[in-house]
Amino acid sequence: MIVNMSDSATEQQIEHIIQRIREAGFQPHVTRGTERTIVAAVGSGGRRHEIEALSVAPGVDTVVAIAQPFKLVSRQTRPQLSVVEVGAARVRIGGPEVVVIAGPCSVESREQLLETAHGVKRAGANMLRGGAYKPRTSPYEFQGLGVEALKILREARELTGLPVVTEVMSTEDVDLICEYADMLQVGARNMQNFALLRRLATIKKPILLKRGPSATVKEWLLAAEYLLSGGNDQVALCERGIKTFETATRNTFDLSAVALAKELSHLPVVADPSHGTGKQSLIGAVSRAAIAVGADAIIVEVHPCPERALSDGPQSLDLPQFERVMRGLSEPLRSVLTPSQMLA
Amino acid sequence: MIVNMSDSATEQQIEHIIQRIREAGFQPHVTRGTERTIVAAVGSGGRRHEIEALSVAPGVDTVVAIAQPFKLVSRQTRPQLSVVEVGAARVRIGGPEVVVIAGPCSVESREQLLETAHGVKRAGANMLRGGAYKPRTSPYEFQGLGVEALKILREARELTGLPVVTEVMSTEDVDLICEYADMLQVGARNMQNFALLRRLATIKKPILLKRGPSATVKEWLLAAEYLLSGGNDQVALCERGIKTFETATRNTFDLSAVALAKELSHLPVVADPSHGTGKQSLIGAVSRAAIAVGADAIIVEVHPCPERALSDGPQSLDLPQFERVMRGLSEPLRSVLTPSQMLA
Amino acid sequence: MIVNMSDSATEQQIEHIIQRIREAGFQPHVTRGTERTIVAAVGSGGRRHEIEALSVAPGVDTVVAIAQPFKLVSRQTRPQLSVVEVGAARVRIGGPEVVVIAGPCSVESREQLLETAHGVKRAGANMLRGGAYKPRTSPYEFQGLGVEALKILREARELTGLPVVTEVMSTEDVDLICEYADMLQVGARNMQNFALLRRLATIKKPILLKRGPSATVKEWLLAAEYLLSGGNDQVALCERGIKTFETATRNTFDLSAVALAKELSHLPVVADPSHGTGKQSLIGAVSRAAIAVGADAIIVEVHPCPERALSDGPQSLDLPQFERVMRGLSEPLRSVLTPSQMLA
Amino acid sequence: MIVNMSDSATEQQIEHIIQRIREAGFQPHVTRGTERTIVAAVGSGGRRHEIEALSVAPGVDTVVAIAQPFKLVSRQTRPQLSVVEVGAARVRIGGPEVVVIAGPCSVESREQLLETAHGVKRAGANMLRGGAYKPRTSPYEFQGLGVEALKILREARELTGLPVVTEVMSTEDVDLICEYADMLQVGARNMQNFALLRRLATIKKPILLKRGPSATVKEWLLAAEYLLSGGNDQVALCERGIKTFETATRNTFDLSAVALAKELSHLPVVADPSHGTGKQSLIGAVSRAAIAVGADAIIVEVHPCPERALSDGPQSLDLPQFERVMRGLSEPLRSVLTPSQMLA
Repeated sequence: MIVNMSDSATEQQIEHIIQRIREAGFQPHVTRGTERTIVAAVGSGGRRHEIEALSVAPGVDTVVAIAQPFKLVSRQTRPQLSVVEVGAARVRIGGPEVVVIAGPCSVESREQLLETAHGVKRAGANMLRGGAYKPRTSPYEFQGLGVEALKILREARELTGLPVVTEVMSTEDVDLICEYADMLQVGARNMQNFALLRRLATIKKPILLKRGPSATVKEWLLAAEYLLSGGNDQVALCERGIKTFETATRNTFDLSAVALAKELSHLPVVADPSHGTGKQSLIGAVSRAAIAVGADAIIVEVHPCPERALSDGPQSLDLPQFERVMRGLSEPLRSVLTPSQMLA
Repeated sequence: MIVNMSDSATEQQIEHIIQRIREAGFQPHVTRGTERTIVAAVGSGGRRHEIEALSVAPGVDTVVAIAQPFKLVSRQTRPQLSVVEVGAARVRIGGPEVVVIAGPCSVESREQLLETAHGVKRAGANMLRGGAYKPRTSPYEFQGLGVEALKILREARELTGLPVVTEVMSTEDVDLICEYADMLQVGARNMQNFALLRRLATIKKPILLKRGPSATVKEWLLAAEYLLSGGNDQVALCERGIKTFETATRNTFDLSAVALAKELSHLPVVADPSHGTGKQSLIGAVSRAAIAVGADAIIVEVHPCPERALSDGPQSLDLPQFERVMRGLSEPLRSVLTPSQMLA
Repeated sequence: MIVNMSDSATEQQIEHIIQRIREAGFQPHVTRGTERTIVAAVGSGGRRHEIEALSVAPGVDTVVAIAQPFKLVSRQTRPQLSVVEVGAARVRIGGPEVVVIAGPCSVESREQLLETAHGVKRAGANMLRGGAYKPRTSPYEFQGLGVEALKILREARELTGLPVVTEVMSTEDVDLICEYADMLQVGARNMQNFALLRRLATIKKPILLKRGPSATVKEWLLAAEYLLSGGNDQVALCERGIKTFETATRNTFDLSAVALAKELSHLPVVADPSHGTGKQSLIGAVSRAAIAVGADAIIVEVHPCPERALSDGPQSLDLPQFERVMRGLSEPLRSVLTPSQMLA
Repeated sequence: MIVNMSDSATEQQIEHIIQRIREAGFQPHVTRGTERTIVAAVGSGGRRHEIEALSVAPGVDTVVAIAQPFKLVSRQTRPQLSVVEVGAARVRIGGPEVVVIAGPCSVESREQLLETAHGVKRAGANMLRGGAYKPRTSPYEFQGLGVEALKILREARELTGLPVVTEVMSTEDVDLICEYADMLQVGARNMQNFALLRRLATIKKPILLKRGPSATVKEWLLAAEYLLSGGNDQVALCERGIKTFETATRNTFDLSAVALAKELSHLPVVADPSHGTGKQSLIGAVSRAAIAVGADAIIVEVHPCPERALSDGPQSLDLPQFERVMRGLSEPLRSVLTPSQMLA
């Protein structure tokens, strides 16, 4: 941490900062410039927030943090990449191959889910997604079938062998969902629901942690830090788009953040092109891009009849579309123009 | 709802949409243009999501919603402005006068809170704020004193008569907090924690509903709709800044949204200049602006010694600063240049 | 500037940075922490960009700038607030009174402009606005009447005595517009049109510099720095809203930025509630807020018949509405609830 | 266009709208719902802005545009994909192969540019980039070598055969730059410099049109529409990142927008991972993603010694890094987990 004094700071004010840095458990280190003085807080055992609060002490201009605030999720702490294993099938997210998770936004009925589960399996998916408890913007929208949906998901897993991931919205539902699902999803709107994160840190199931729509990569990693520091290191991050001024896509799919998260952290990263774009027609292209940029898995919404879906119809693929997207994933990248193709 | 067919839509595709609109409980109404056809879904009893999902039906270009999705919070439903009464003192948010809520970000100790409570009361505050359960970005930051803080808040209320508002982060804490606090705050990060909203809809205490950092005004009103539709209409909205590209202030304080929320809804609106700006030095000016734009209350962070605060020090006022801000609230607006002050 | 070495930086890498800081004209000052080393570049005569580029030198983690990059616009350089005088009437923006600038988005005809000019003068406006050259998103929209509009603006000034501000979009139009207008506006989309800024730095007319829709306050002040460093210090800044995820208003009107710009700079600040909100119904409230937060002037779009305006109709006031907004500016702020109004 | 009347609209107000729609050159088409009435403006020959302005007519709630506002750039107008040919080498952007454009941010010296040009050619680049006139946020930063840089670029083209693209910032420089460069770049900050666009519409050289940092895809396509409607259809769009709340990357690289632009328009699309991320270490991964998502070309900043670059050092690759990025472009996508790799 660096405390940057203002041009007009007095000796007494500088002295006060030096003393406060000592109180906070750091060593102060003063650099006097021609115009201004900076005081560094050196050491690793001190209390960071006490230094941050000095930004309002007299004579202080700004306080700048140097070190990253996360620890256990950091690749500096654990250089080896983590792999998250899901379900009895031991699907490995973060292994050499890309994992494809597919299924409807919401479980709407037994028929709908089983048809989808069989269909996505046939097309090559490795895991099944489906919402039982739905976070809906309006109280008048479909809120999910709850425990009935969980039972249907379990049946689908038994029939197809695909491990199941489903969202948990409340601490009170954690135990119940753990009985049925192989992986629990923290939705984007709950990324900073710290009560939920603390509870999920104590369970033995892997977590899919979606990035909040206005969360920076740093905040996202700190949310994961809640899980790891609480005892659960079976965590996969999931980029699903952030909220920006652009409304032509539902969110702005931040694929650079996938590469950045993998640079900063050892945790595997999943990409969600369905929420990332909100548009059926773009999902094939951005799924390929997500894999190219380094995502360890993609999670895609598929519905037997998107125009009849109770939620997220506009971004859901039907089964033939999903099959085409899957085939697209194995096509080579377009090649670069070579000198022989240019005029002399 | 309007279904806008693409230029190349066939008669059969238009016919399909007409039929689907009927199935969804609306009357279809077709307008054939020279280039394209639009089909309106007319009526109030139909299922909106079924029309929304038609955006992926063959031959459809886009689906546009016309009516606002919220009902009970709307000023069209209830033209008279609502007033929220808080505590035994019956402080009225939404009445003719502006309410000032002040206190520390977190309750840190009995001494700190009581000194603040007495100080803000002396300066003219009408309610006391103070966090017992803190939503912190990092698990390594101060997480609040919990029930101990609630007891201190209750004591402060007894000593000063100021009603108390404090944040609730989890459904599991609702009953406990209700025993101590006069108003429960839903924090910005929990604005779309629907499990929490549904639980708070069933209690008899007023709610302070903060706008999420990436929530549109529409989403904010729909979060309030969860409370009203569940049975609790004692709701005050709170604008506290949104997340944008600008980092010179902690958030971008959206004061137009205060005016807009009051135009769209009958609910009272509170403004939080502390989180809105994150900068001590700006709070006086933006508090005045918040009142000028129509806020029914302001909520301000005050700490006896901001540079020692365990959270939000940089945006907290000390007591003399808070007194100055309070005095500023009663100064007249700068006057407009008159012709006699211009050269002929 | 501070160069923050990575944890694994070698002595040789640190030595390289020290040497490069000397080459760039600064004194290096090394602080060795328990985990990492930082090297400060001390002094005021060095070349900042050479230090910035060190962020990619081996062993470097990040480079952090400490001092603000702007000079002449800074209040540290010139503590006294600047006043910009406009036209023969010597309207003073930045003086004790608030200036009101009003008029249509575009000059559409002689009748339209003269009716507006007389109307806004009668209601109390101090200056006239009107576009001759219009920056329109689509090439198929009305592009302005050009020199014909300039002549009409000059006539309106002669008839009303109101000084005139109009937008300049191109270096090639500068001389012509200078013949007719009293103040030249740089539009939001041209805030970083540096060729235009450099040209306007050489003229003797005052400039109204709008903030770009994605410009930070720092970038806005640096755009003004182009004008001052080039020789023109008759500059008023103008906040007109920034682009964010919120679409309920046309832009997000950043009123905190008005207060912040006045804290950082001596230049006067104008606020544009018309573009800031894009909604007729909000303009009265946010105009009051702009004055409360410290704006030295407001600039408002007024049209005799907004529903027939060739541009910006939805945000234009008609004359009776403008009169009401003007009356609202002199109403007192709502008062704060006093103890006697609370229950014992 | 659809005019959506408010619930309380009178018959007279509806009649007024019907008449105004006729005046604007459209056919009115009325749909009366149980709660509200909508009036569609049907036809293609009318004046859209007159309908837009009706949003402030009495009894009107909102006006909604249905058709896209751009024409010549639209794939509906010209279904066949366009190819832009650059220079004597006739490099085809939009052809079957991906084009790689590389070079320094700024031309700093003859040695620096020639070394880079030879290096990027050797590594497989097809075109050379280099700035002669630089749009810099601060007036105190390096502003480019101007015509001297143009001469050096021409020499580099002669020596390597690589066509040259360079930025034009002002209408006054257009003729000069046309003498030297093969393609003219409109920088992100000038995307809506309409005077510049109108001038460039009249020349015979291809244009690289960068997306503005706060431009929607629609605004970007409308900027291109200025070029096509003015007579120049040799236009390549360039995505370079948008400004969002995320500061871990310099911009948020909107790769979905590449796919979307190609869906909406026939113009080829270039992707700029250097500005898109601002981070050397991410460029390899996001370049691959850009190609996977459908970009026709990538444009990458390369400098012989990034830590000594006069601009954009932190995002520039050195030559060995660029070679590695080039090799990465031909590696296959990671493959999807197959059933045989899962447990039974």
